[in-house]
Amino acid sequence: MAQLRIALAQTNPVVGDLAGNANRLVEWTHRAAHEGAHLVVFTEMFLTGYPVEDLVLRSSFVDASTATLEAVARRLADEGLGELPVITGYVDRADLEPRVGQPKGAPLDAVAVLYDGRVVARSAKHHLPNYGVFDEYRYFVRGDRMPIVRVRGVDVAIAVCEDLWQDGGPVSTVARAGAGLLVVPNASPYEVEKDDVRRELVERRAREAGCALAYVNQVGGQDELVFDGDSIVVDASGALIARASQFKEELLVTDLDLPIGTGEPGEFPVDAQDGTTITVERLELTGGPVEPYAPVPPVVAPRLDDLAEIYHALVLGVRDYVTKNGFRSVILGLSGGIDSALATTIASDAIGPERVNVVLMPSRYSSEHSVGDAEELVRRQGVTARTVPIADIVTAFEKEIDLDGLAAENLQARVRGMLLMSLSNEHGHLVLTTGNKSELATGYSTLYGDSAGGFAPIKDVPKTLVWELSTWRNAHGPDDFFLLRTDEPPIPENSITKEPSAELRPDQRDTDSLPPYDVLDRLLDEYVEKDMGAPELVAAGHDSELVSRIIRLVDLAEYKRRQYPPGPKITPKNFGRDRRLPITNRWRETTR
Amino acid sequence: MAQLRIALAQTNPVVGDLAGNANRLVEWTHRAAHEGAHLVVFTEMFLTGYPVEDLVLRSSFVDASTATLEAVARRLADEGLGELPVITGYVDRADLEPRVGQPKGAPLDAVAVLYDGRVVARSAKHHLPNYGVFDEYRYFVRGDRMPIVRVRGVDVAIAVCEDLWQDGGPVSTVARAGAGLLVVPNASPYEVEKDDVRRELVERRAREAGCALAYVNQVGGQDELVFDGDSIVVDASGALIARASQFKEELLVTDLDLPIGTGEPGEFPVDAQDGTTITVERLELTGGPVEPYAPVPPVVAPRLDDLAEIYHALVLGVRDYVTKNGFRSVILGLSGGIDSALATTIASDAIGPERVNVVLMPSRYSSEHSVGDAEELVRRQGVTARTVPIADIVTAFEKEIDLDGLAAENLQARVRGMLLMSLSNEHGHLVLTTGNKSELATGYSTLYGDSAGGFAPIKDVPKTLVWELSTWRNAHGPDDFFLLRTDEPPIPENSITKEPSAELRPDQRDTDSLPPYDVLDRLLDEYVEKDMGAPELVAAGHDSELVSRIIRLVDLAEYKRRQYPPGPKITPKNFGRDRRLPITNRWRETTR
Repeated sequence: MAQLRIALAQTNPVVGDLAGNANRLVEWTHRAAHEGAHLVVFTEMFLTGYPVEDLVLRSSFVDASTATLEAVARRLADEGLGELPVITGYVDRADLEPRVGQPKGAPLDAVAVLYDGRVVARSAKHHLPNYGVFDEYRYFVRGDRMPIVRVRGVDVAIAVCEDLWQDGGPVSTVARAGAGLLVVPNASPYEVEKDDVRRELVERRAREAGCALAYVNQVGGQDELVFDGDSIVVDASGALIARASQFKEELLVTDLDLPIGTGEPGEFPVDAQDGTTITVERLELTGGPVEPYAPVPPVVAPRLDDLAEIYHALVLGVRDYVTKNGFRSVILGLSGGIDSALATTIASDAIGPERVNVVLMPSRYSSEHSVGDAEELVRRQGVTARTVPIADIVTAFEKEIDLDGLAAENLQARVRGMLLMSLSNEHGHLVLTTGNKSELATGYSTLYGDSAGGFAPIKDVPKTLVWELSTWRNAHGPDDFFLLRTDEPPIPENSITKEPSAELRPDQRDTDSLPPYDVLDRLLDEYVEKDMGAPELVAAGHDSELVSRIIRLVDLAEYKRRQYPPGPKITPKNFGRDRRLPITNRWRETTR
Repeated sequence: MAQLRIALAQTNPVVGDLAGNANRLVEWTHRAAHEGAHLVVFTEMFLTGYPVEDLVLRSSFVDASTATLEAVARRLADEGLGELPVITGYVDRADLEPRVGQPKGAPLDAVAVLYDGRVVARSAKHHLPNYGVFDEYRYFVRGDRMPIVRVRGVDVAIAVCEDLWQDGGPVSTVARAGAGLLVVPNASPYEVEKDDVRRELVERRAREAGCALAYVNQVGGQDELVFDGDSIVVDASGALIARASQFKEELLVTDLDLPIGTGEPGEFPVDAQDGTTITVERLELTGGPVEPYAPVPPVVAPRLDDLAEIYHALVLGVRDYVTKNGFRSVILGLSGGIDSALATTIASDAIGPERVNVVLMPSRYSSEHSVGDAEELVRRQGVTARTVPIADIVTAFEKEIDLDGLAAENLQARVRGMLLMSLSNEHGHLVLTTGNKSELATGYSTLYGDSAGGFAPIKDVPKTLVWELSTWRNAHGPDDFFLLRTDEPPIPENSITKEPSAELRPDQRDTDSLPPYDVLDRLLDEYVEKDMGAPELVAAGHDSELVSRIIRLVDLAEYKRRQYPPGPKITPKNFGRDRRLPITNRWRETTR
């Protein structure tokens, strides 16, 4: 057996910022060297950020990626880090003739080993995910190599992300080729309870590969996606050795005791048991095993509970969307209701209340308690507030055109949306949109009104979960590094407990047109997340008339949802890129 | 040799309208029987419409598709059509265990042969396109059969759409299995010059398969997509025998003289030369060859030229979006400029001027000629017009908040957008958005202002093409069944010839901030459609400083484009589902 100290760089790259990501790589490698690591592993496509979508179809982008890879290898050596092997993701290309349907330039979701100032091995993801938020058949061609590099006497095999999730392919070759450690760079986005699924998967694959497994995941927000970190190391039996935190950057340093590799250097083909052949490339990097040393105790970060996880995902999603897009401040409408109260609180936690601007826009139908609750939140959090009454503007519109009913209600929402967009244009704030998922699902929002904006913190949060998260947030704060410290709970209790209303006409209540939210949210979960049709929903115990009414609302709101801003994804289907129905669609489910 | 009269049903199904599509199938089969056809072929996924996107993930939908298929087979027999074999596309499912990444329910892009009241053969698309507007790895699993049915003595093989475009797979088995005719149901959307590519492909595959080939394509609009028909029949040497019209429904009836089939019924495996094995299923349907008869002369519809093709695609796209979504009328802002003039004309051609409502919304910066040109268009086309001045509403906003520069310009555009949306809500008109592709590419539009609406007729039309199409349209009309007849050319000449301006501040001109449109459009074509990076663009002769400036504008406008309404696709990348960049994106091309 040989000792090996590995450092997993659970980091937050920026999409497209190749120079910045290269700097991060060098900086974190210095830190790993300082910690005495023998091997450093970065995440999938770390140098380019992930996902980069159509950027990979531009040859200038792929050229920049490969040039950055080679430059950073030289720079590591120049800075005295040449002896420390570094594994990192980047984008490369395959040498294939163009053909119909093959992504332009044949890009690869690649991984490389940097050592001694050079790129000593290159490989690429073999299994390309094309479901949920992934569209990788559009972007990549398949890798067909399995590098196994000997580091300090230990054979280290390398696979990428989805290769762990699918049977067959590179991971299936590890047991037959023989390795002491399998490292897997990932860019695996957060979803509620996904950590449990990952943990089980990593355990199973370690046992199949017959070696220890180090899973390193990206952290941070990128458009709709929030990467949660949660990097883990297991031994060959699948038992947990070390685990990094969720939702923050961390260098996870772990000492392992691993079998000494014995295979000869060279290349050989292995049947990958998925109809393809993988070329295993065995390579010796450094001298023999290290002298015995005293290991550091393994780090096992505690898990967050489900509500904490979700809240952290939303905060990180908002923070990174704002800062990575170069905004310094946000603006949003504050009504006194729970949705805008929670969205404001998330924003305050994400970037600090001094950068959060709220606008109170009372109308003729706003209740006194609404204004009072909004003002109370402003006081508790210390955000910047202003009041802009909308009555005179609404009157100016009504002088020019006659509007009744829904059109008149929508006008009020649109005047508010325009005021926020105008203030955004004038002062450079990002507009946050405050709708929740139940509203978005059923179409209870106004196009270009309350749905206007650049990012929607709670668009993937059903209304019942809005209340749960608000209660959770009010009970936490001082003990959590992610959260703003306030003297009182940040959300006025009345905003949580009062009956929800859009206040667009006198005495309006959400329950005038919708069932109670606990009933609605259960139905939406099964229709939207689980793709259950009407007959299945009725068989599952939902009221037949309600099923017909609600799924009709959901189907007809498809156009509105497409026009909604992105927001942090926490469920399997966040009404972003991961659920798509035709707009022109005559399919109407029936419960018969 | 044996004679065979085939009828290709180039039809316009409605997505999700299974009952309506089944009615269409029966009605068109009656027509084919009346024409003496021996075989009728419908398009890909005809019974469900195409594309259906996430609907296929619902078991209730797939159940409805297969039930409709069986019911329509019975109904054909009940109506005396049981002896006439019908080939049609629909959605089915494969019997596969669920696994990670496999589309839920294992749906198939299926095709069936209906005969004698029953479904006598079923197959499914083998090659799944996942590029451009196609995402079929998300939705379907692969078919692995090649049915060859003997009809009146002739062996008829069946493949689906993409199977024709890729090497290997079902089509490669035809030559070895032997067939007299290969029929290919398609749902292949229009793109400029795609008809030439298709024609060449069909010729080549006919020669490879060693038999005649009948290619039948859908027609009609579905969200962004416009299917152009253009069904064709070639002989075994690839020579053109018959061709249907573009952009309209047609039953293309063609007499063929084909070799008599001799193989025995049964199933056998064939290596499909793409790493898979296809099961060829040979089946005898009807008795022997028909008695010799006098063939009808083949129909070869004339081709439209490029401008006519594009204009027809836009008209059909608008007509079907409006009518299939159940709208009876449209509304749009008419400024006197060329974009809104062309959009109005397309709408008048699509649904008739009596259903087109225009709103003139002059501001303090509108020129006299703008109002005059708009009024002249109203007079020539007979659309319904009203004028709503925006000055007082703008003033009402400005009383509440201080706005300068761009924020003040955007406000005017947003007041107009809100007026149109309010009138849409009040009267049920669909709002048409009038921006062109050059504007959309560079971000010269206002979020929730001129970009508000439900469908954007010219969003895929670059500005230089807007002028060309307007000139073309003014020169046509009486001779073209697609176009409204007007006494004078429908577009005021001054709208075509005057210098373009947004008129959001005094004496504003587009060239204040953009290069001349011919220069801009050439650059955009290479950057957007061809994915050329900055170094390639400079090498291709574009000015280096201009390249940097324009691609920066294009990159920064990604968010706006995502919020833009859909519109008919005529180019490879219409800024709809077929081009996607991250919003959070620090990649900045440099020309060095």
